[in-house]
Amino acid sequence: MSVTAAQGFTAAGIAAGIKANGNPDLALVVNTGPRRAAAGVFTSNRVKAAPVLWSEQVVKTGEITAVVLNSGGANACTGPKGFQDTHATAEKAAEVLEIGAGEVAVASTGLIGVLLPMDKLLPGIDKAAAELSVHGGEKAAIAIKTTDTVHKTSVHTSPAGWTVGGMAKGAGMLAPGLATMLVVLTTDADLEAPVLDKALRDATRQTFDRVDSDGCMSTNDTVLLLASGASEVAPGYEEFAAAVRTVCDDLARQLIGDAEGASKDIRIEVINAATEDDAVEVGRSIARNNLLKCALHGEDPNWGRVLSAIGTTKAAFDPDELNVAINGVWVCKKGSVGDDRDLVDMRYREIKITADLAEGSESAVIWANDLTADYVHENSAYSS
Amino acid sequence: MSVTAAQGFTAAGIAAGIKANGNPDLALVVNTGPRRAAAGVFTSNRVKAAPVLWSEQVVKTGEITAVVLNSGGANACTGPKGFQDTHATAEKAAEVLEIGAGEVAVASTGLIGVLLPMDKLLPGIDKAAAELSVHGGEKAAIAIKTTDTVHKTSVHTSPAGWTVGGMAKGAGMLAPGLATMLVVLTTDADLEAPVLDKALRDATRQTFDRVDSDGCMSTNDTVLLLASGASEVAPGYEEFAAAVRTVCDDLARQLIGDAEGASKDIRIEVINAATEDDAVEVGRSIARNNLLKCALHGEDPNWGRVLSAIGTTKAAFDPDELNVAINGVWVCKKGSVGDDRDLVDMRYREIKITADLAEGSESAVIWANDLTADYVHENSAYSS
Repeated sequence: MSVTAAQGFTAAGIAAGIKANGNPDLALVVNTGPRRAAAGVFTSNRVKAAPVLWSEQVVKTGEITAVVLNSGGANACTGPKGFQDTHATAEKAAEVLEIGAGEVAVASTGLIGVLLPMDKLLPGIDKAAAELSVHGGEKAAIAIKTTDTVHKTSVHTSPAGWTVGGMAKGAGMLAPGLATMLVVLTTDADLEAPVLDKALRDATRQTFDRVDSDGCMSTNDTVLLLASGASEVAPGYEEFAAAVRTVCDDLARQLIGDAEGASKDIRIEVINAATEDDAVEVGRSIARNNLLKCALHGEDPNWGRVLSAIGTTKAAFDPDELNVAINGVWVCKKGSVGDDRDLVDMRYREIKITADLAEGSESAVIWANDLTADYVHENSAYSS
Repeated sequence: MSVTAAQGFTAAGIAAGIKANGNPDLALVVNTGPRRAAAGVFTSNRVKAAPVLWSEQVVKTGEITAVVLNSGGANACTGPKGFQDTHATAEKAAEVLEIGAGEVAVASTGLIGVLLPMDKLLPGIDKAAAELSVHGGEKAAIAIKTTDTVHKTSVHTSPAGWTVGGMAKGAGMLAPGLATMLVVLTTDADLEAPVLDKALRDATRQTFDRVDSDGCMSTNDTVLLLASGASEVAPGYEEFAAAVRTVCDDLARQLIGDAEGASKDIRIEVINAATEDDAVEVGRSIARNNLLKCALHGEDPNWGRVLSAIGTTKAAFDPDELNVAINGVWVCKKGSVGDDRDLVDMRYREIKITADLAEGSESAVIWANDLTADYVHENSAYSS
């Protein structure tokens, strides 16, 4: 379903030979119109991959006709040659699709600091273009996988006759200000670029930006939203924004559920904060605490590590008023021992931590993963 | 030789029964004078253990006669009862030593959120007091161990006839603004509290504060410096401060070398930074990058992860001017591929990362550890 669930889009996913193992590694998504409106959100890492630098410029026009995505190489920290390669990728797609290179966004994922094998990538674009299909969304989603064990897609259809669909990849290096995630969302709603931009920023702020699998921020994060207008329906902003948020939320949850080596998905809700920023800061601090992540992996409801994480923030709180629940049991009350920790059932994959700052009425949810020996193995062996 | 290397100090370390396994768990350090000057530095975590709240007040007088330290329980997040227990500990030591409770500092380490077994701790103080000896430094250092595999001590003696010695414990939860480290330094130099305070702050800022084993900040960190004046020598500030820094540096290096589950000690030197703060911020960001820590565990000189960590900071740099060396090989030059990464020899325990920001002339060194399956195991099984 993926990026071709909405009308006005074709896609393909093929094996171009960028990955040594022969798995699919090149995806192409094309907006067949009538409209070609687009918006994008990119990594806030100051070390940005060549395709990010390129696509940031492309999306400023408010129009994208095609997106070329590759796995098997991030094209990050590759200097002027890396940027030339991204440019050549866009030129090649433009030539094949008979459009301008300035209408082509590029996204890459994989190992940093290695040049892409352009002798394989460029012919791959010909091959992908030949396979473009309104049924190609699934294959495109598969071709952008790196260490993902499953491909991720999501679709939301409005009774009014328009659709938002999308695909995502990302399994490690998930963090604040987006993750090593490549996400392409498509819609056949008939909306202009500024509306797409606002809806996308509102959605990512509360979804992808609040996923913090391992605290590491990527050089390549890219989230694009393309609108074809093919449904000929122009929904109201609130309705459309809610649909985009629903799809982003679904994809973000899938990313956390498939994070490298994780055995637990941790939903951290910070409540009664003075401000939303405080809630997010506290949530992130808990999400990144390696000692807590290890404890949760061991199914140990170690609330002391939650408190020590909260204590490192600048958020408004009184240490003697903090309350913490794990899976609904208030194991910490007023900064001290609360209900019996043996009451906490830690067997299931999802763990809920509630941190009550007792300062105000704002809240935020951050998603994280546990820290496991599998994570260590995967990231000490896989050079990515 | 630890805390009894300097003249004017006695110490003891005994098993009070706080630890279930019967290992030593209570240490007592006594300044026999003639001077009782003291300084202290404590965790910057806003969630502070009861003994930290107590000892912060005690040290404000500039005088400490005795320090009671226990392992087997942190007495953190234990509410008013926890503070009463710390107070009772100081009162008990004061009674036995015939001093005032306001002259007794207390430090604790172990599990957060559990009350100490006072029925064992208080009799333990009698037992420790009976064993006080000018040869007791080693036993005191042993009694404060938690997951430490070895006890840590250091001594520096000046040709002028005065000495600085110390003991430290800490193996996990090592981080910025100090770590779960308990450190007691002693000296027989004849100096007043304000001088001790300045020397201690200068030393910890460049040593313990720059150890970042796992990014987690403790509720219990305590570093005390006691001066007996017994040598009757009053060294100049620079000479004394250098000695304190040498001992702190040695102890900090021992902490990193014994960090939970670590297989590598990582020395991160940030050079050519615009400011020292920039250098420290970049060093910490590299030190905390889980993906890099995994790669180094796997002996993979993955410089891309160094760059992505630098990119998350606010330090002054141009991404296209960054250079990174691993064990002396400049694998990244001007933000792109440098010398052959296969030239990097990763076999030894110590790994040196040099990050050149190419912006100025300031520098800083941060010490970190790799991330290993053993770290995960130790921290998912040991509830601390």
